[in-house]
Amino acid sequence: MTISAVSRVQLAYERIRQLDRPEIWITLRDESDALLEAALIDKRQLVGEVLPLAGLAAAVKDNIDVAGLPTTAAAPSFRFEPDSDATAVARLRAAGAVIIGKTNLDQFATGLVGTRSPYGAVRNAWNTARISGGSSSGSAVAVALGIVDVSLGTDTAGSGRVPAALNGIVGVKLTRGRIPTTGVVPACRTLDCVTVFARDLDLATRTAEMLAGADGIDPLARTAAELAAVSLEEVTIPPRPRVAVPLPAQLNGLAEGWATAFDAAVFQLSETGVEIVAVDIEPLLEAARLLYEGAFVAERFAAVGQHIDSHRDLIGTDLDPTVSSIVLGGATKLAWEYYADREQLDLLRLASEKVLAGCSALLTPTTTWHPTFDELAADPIGGNSRLGRFTNFANLLDMTSLAVPAGVVDNLPFGVMFTAPAFHDLAVHQLAGRLISRRIELLVVGAHLSGQPLNHQLIAEGASFVRDVKTGADYALYALDTVPPKPGLLRIGDGGDSIRGEVWSLPAAGFGRFVAGLPNPMTIGPVALVDGTSVSGFLCEPIAIQGAEDISSYGGWLAWRQAVEADTQLPVKV
Amino acid sequence: MTISAVSRVQLAYERIRQLDRPEIWITLRDESDALLEAALIDKRQLVGEVLPLAGLAAAVKDNIDVAGLPTTAAAPSFRFEPDSDATAVARLRAAGAVIIGKTNLDQFATGLVGTRSPYGAVRNAWNTARISGGSSSGSAVAVALGIVDVSLGTDTAGSGRVPAALNGIVGVKLTRGRIPTTGVVPACRTLDCVTVFARDLDLATRTAEMLAGADGIDPLARTAAELAAVSLEEVTIPPRPRVAVPLPAQLNGLAEGWATAFDAAVFQLSETGVEIVAVDIEPLLEAARLLYEGAFVAERFAAVGQHIDSHRDLIGTDLDPTVSSIVLGGATKLAWEYYADREQLDLLRLASEKVLAGCSALLTPTTTWHPTFDELAADPIGGNSRLGRFTNFANLLDMTSLAVPAGVVDNLPFGVMFTAPAFHDLAVHQLAGRLISRRIELLVVGAHLSGQPLNHQLIAEGASFVRDVKTGADYALYALDTVPPKPGLLRIGDGGDSIRGEVWSLPAAGFGRFVAGLPNPMTIGPVALVDGTSVSGFLCEPIAIQGAEDISSYGGWLAWRQAVEADTQLPVKV
Repeated sequence: MTISAVSRVQLAYERIRQLDRPEIWITLRDESDALLEAALIDKRQLVGEVLPLAGLAAAVKDNIDVAGLPTTAAAPSFRFEPDSDATAVARLRAAGAVIIGKTNLDQFATGLVGTRSPYGAVRNAWNTARISGGSSSGSAVAVALGIVDVSLGTDTAGSGRVPAALNGIVGVKLTRGRIPTTGVVPACRTLDCVTVFARDLDLATRTAEMLAGADGIDPLARTAAELAAVSLEEVTIPPRPRVAVPLPAQLNGLAEGWATAFDAAVFQLSETGVEIVAVDIEPLLEAARLLYEGAFVAERFAAVGQHIDSHRDLIGTDLDPTVSSIVLGGATKLAWEYYADREQLDLLRLASEKVLAGCSALLTPTTTWHPTFDELAADPIGGNSRLGRFTNFANLLDMTSLAVPAGVVDNLPFGVMFTAPAFHDLAVHQLAGRLISRRIELLVVGAHLSGQPLNHQLIAEGASFVRDVKTGADYALYALDTVPPKPGLLRIGDGGDSIRGEVWSLPAAGFGRFVAGLPNPMTIGPVALVDGTSVSGFLCEPIAIQGAEDISSYGGWLAWRQAVEADTQLPVKV
Repeated sequence: MTISAVSRVQLAYERIRQLDRPEIWITLRDESDALLEAALIDKRQLVGEVLPLAGLAAAVKDNIDVAGLPTTAAAPSFRFEPDSDATAVARLRAAGAVIIGKTNLDQFATGLVGTRSPYGAVRNAWNTARISGGSSSGSAVAVALGIVDVSLGTDTAGSGRVPAALNGIVGVKLTRGRIPTTGVVPACRTLDCVTVFARDLDLATRTAEMLAGADGIDPLARTAAELAAVSLEEVTIPPRPRVAVPLPAQLNGLAEGWATAFDAAVFQLSETGVEIVAVDIEPLLEAARLLYEGAFVAERFAAVGQHIDSHRDLIGTDLDPTVSSIVLGGATKLAWEYYADREQLDLLRLASEKVLAGCSALLTPTTTWHPTFDELAADPIGGNSRLGRFTNFANLLDMTSLAVPAGVVDNLPFGVMFTAPAFHDLAVHQLAGRLISRRIELLVVGAHLSGQPLNHQLIAEGASFVRDVKTGADYALYALDTVPPKPGLLRIGDGGDSIRGEVWSLPAAGFGRFVAGLPNPMTIGPVALVDGTSVSGFLCEPIAIQGAEDISSYGGWLAWRQAVEADTQLPVKV
C-alpha cells in the first residue's frame, strides 16, 4: 500500500460525506478516533513494522463486535457495548486496517435482501432503485462504492455472497469454522461464517486468510490439525481441472440476460483449460430447501428468539416483522423433526459428494435475479428465497464458496460463484483467479466506442462491453487531426467537464497487446470517473492538442460527431 | 485358528444346549444352516483362501441386520425380515466367521442394564443373580460364556462397554463412524457405533478393524481420507505416554472394592512406564448429563418414536415400559432446546480437549457398580444412570473407547476403560495391551493354592487371585511323593473327576519366570475347566504317578489334606 493510513481514512470519510448513503451505517466511528488510530499505523510502518493491511479502510457488519462501538445486529433493543473485539476484528486491526464503522444488515442476519432493517433499506451501489442484497448489505455497498477497501460480513445461507454479486465485488466465505465466530451475534450458530468483501480477489482472499485460525474460544473453529490434515495437492487445482456446472434446466428462472452471461463465464473458464461437466445438482438444491422448510430454523430461535419473544411489542418498529416471524417460527419446531431433517441432510451430503466427485468445484451464478425494491415488496419471502437458490446449501453441506464479478448485464453487475468441499479454499480462489483476474477494464471515449470504426480492435482482443460512464468533471476532450478521426482526453483540473465514455473489459493478455499496439499520440493511464472510481483509459500526449478543437462542451465524442455531421452533411469518414 | 469352522460351530450349539441361558437369544440360527456355512468356510480354507476369522463362531445383537434372520430390536411388533446383511455383518461373514444367532438386548438399544426386553432379562455370565449389563446383553454374555468367540453389539452411551465390564470381556468401540451403521436399527443415529466383544483384546480389536471403512451408504461413516489425515505418530502412544485419570472425588460411589481394583490397574499401568496424571473430568461428566437431561433424547424418538406411539396398546407386553417412556419423552423436546444443548456440548467438548491435552487417553473404571436384579429393580432409572457415568460422554464427544477386564472383585469381574479423541483407536488398544496382555492366567491345584506353602512364589511374581474353578470331569489327581507335598494332575478321559483349583493371573514375564523355574515332575499345559473354557495349569509327568495314591475322589488337594490331617492327627509338614 502506497497510500498512508491517515490519507485513506480521510478519503473514506470524505467519500461518505460526498455520497448520500446514510443507510449503509448503523454506527459510524468518530472520525478523529479513526484518524488517531490511522496515524499510529503510519508511525508503526515508519519504524519498520510489517502491517500487511496498513493503509486500508475497513467496515464491519453490525453483528460482529468492535470494542468501543455498540453491537446492534440491526435491532436497537438488542444493542450492547462489547468489551472486546470479535476475533476476526482483532485480527483485522492487528494487520493494520482501520475500522471506520459498523454497517447495516438484515436484522439478526436473517435475509438475503438488505431491506429488513429499522436503520433503512440499503440501496444498491450501482442503482439506487435496486436492492443491495443482504444480509451483509452495508458492508458490501461500502466496499462497492469505494468507501472502504475491505469489510467483514457474515454468511449463513448466502449473506456474504449475494450482496457481493449484486454490487459487483468479491465475497469470500472460507470453509465454516476457519475464521472463528467469537464475538459474532449468532444467526444459526453451527452454520455461521465470517466473510470478507473487497473489490479485488487477491485482497479479499488474503484478508480472509489473515483472519483464519482457531482462537481457543470458538468450539466450532477448525483446528490447525484439521487444516494440516488436508494435503496441498488435494486442495489446489490439478493441471487440467474439472469444474461442474448445473444442468441447463437447473439454471431456469435466471434474470433476463443472466443465462447468457453465465454461459460466457463458463466459456471463458473453459478457455483457460478447465474441463466443464454438467451435473445434476438436485441433492444440493434439496439440502437448501431443508434450511427454510424444515426444523433447522429453530437454531435462529435458539440464538435470538428469546429476545424477540420478550419484545413482541416492538415488532413493526424496532424489530423487523419478517425477521421476527421467521425467528419465532422456529420456537415450535420439535427436536425429533430436527433429527429427521438432519438424517435427510446427511444423505444429501453423501449424494452431493458423489455428484461433485472428480470436480475441483461447482460453478453457478451467485444469485438468480436482482429485484428493484418494488419487485421485492411484491413478494418479500419468495423473492428472498430466489436469491438464495445457489448459496443456501454451501454452509449446510460444509463447503467453501467464493463469489466474484463476471460481467455486467443491463448496467447491473452479474456474479458467479465457485463452491467446493470443506478446506478447498485455495482451489476456489485459483479457479476464480482464472476467471476474473485475467480481465482488465478499459475506458474508451472515441473511435473505440460501440459502433465506431476501431471498436473491432477491442472485439478482436476478446473485449466485452461493461457499462456507460462519465469521467470526473476535470477533463477536457479535443478533436485530434487523425485518421480515422479520434478525440484526445486530458485532465485539466478546474474548468474541465465530465466526458462520456464506455468501459470495456479485456483479457489481461489482450489488454496488453492492445496497449502495446497503440499509435501516438494515444496513451493509456488512470482516468477518474464521476462515481469516484478510477479505470485505465484513453488519454493523449499534450503535444497533440496544440491547435486541436476543444469539444468538451459537447460532453463526448459521439455528440460532437453528430453535431459535425448535422452541420456539414458530410459522410463520416470510416 | 487351528479348529475347523464346523467343529467350532458344533461346539457353540453344544454349549448352548449345555447352558441354561435361553434369554441370550432372540433368534437362534438353524444349526444345520450354520454348519453348512461352516463347512463351506472349511472348504475355502482348504483350497488356500485366506479367511482371517475362519473357525470363529459369532453372534449379532438383534438390532443389526443379518439376511435370513429377522431383526426385532427386542420388540416383537417391530420385527422385520431384512433383505441383506448390515455392512458390519457382511464384513464379519466375508472374513470367515459363522453367525449362529441374534442376541437379546435392551429394547431399541435403550438401557445399560440388560433387563429391558420382553425376551427376558439377561443374566450375568458369572453370577445369575446379577445383571448382564446392556444394552448389548446377549452378545456380551454369549462371548463371556464361550458360546461364541466374537459378537457384535452397538454403543450409543456405553452399550458396547458396560456389559463387557460386567461379564469380564473386552468391548471395542472404535471412533464413531469407522464401522458403518448401515443395516443397524438406530438408537441415536448420530451417536450410534457398532462394537465388538471378544474375550481376547487382540481378537476384539482385529475384528473391529476388519469391519471398519466407509461403505458409500452410511453418510456418517468416516472416510478413508479422514483416517489417512491423522498421522500414525499422532494416534500411537509415545515412548513415555501420559494417561489421565479422574480426580479422586470423581471416583466416589464405586462399588465395594472397585476403587482399590482401579488403583491397582492404575499402578500396574504406571509400572509399564506410563505417567499418570489426575485431571478434572467435570466437562466430560457434564456432557454425559446432557445426554439424558436435555433434548438429545429426541433423537431416540426420531428413530423409533413413531413405532411406539402407534403401538401404545403394547406397552407393558411387547414394548418395554421404561424404554417406551424414555423414547416418548423425546417427542415433545423442542428443536431450539436441542440447539441450546448442542452449544453447551460444543463448549464442553472444547473444555474436555483442554483437560485431556497432552494425554494419550483417559483411564476410568468402565462402570461404577454391578447390581443384582433386585438392587436394580429398586431404582431402575437411577441404577441405569450410575452404570453410564464413565461411558455416556464418549460418543457425544466423538471419542474412541475400549473396555478391558482388570481383575476380579468378590467373584465378579472388574473392568477399566481407555477413552481417547477420535481416531486414536490404536492408542487405546496399545494402552490396554500394556495393562492386560501382560497378564496370563494360571490354574493351580496344590501347593500354590491360597494359604498353601508355595503360594508365595506366585505372589512374588505379581500374581493376583482370579477365581475358584473346577476342571472338566476327565481328570485325576494323585498325591506325589514330594517336599512339600504336592499333587499331580493328569487328564485320564472317561472315569475321571472334576478337580477343584484356583485361577491366578500373573504378568507375562512373571508367568514366564515361574514356569521356567518349575522342578520336575511338574509341567504346565492347557487344562479344560468345567465351564468349557481352558486355562494354562499345573499338570505332571505321567512317570511321577507310578505308585502315587489316586486322590481324585476327594475332589481336590485341600479336601484330601484335611482328610489326611484328621486321620493321622499329624502336623502337616511345611
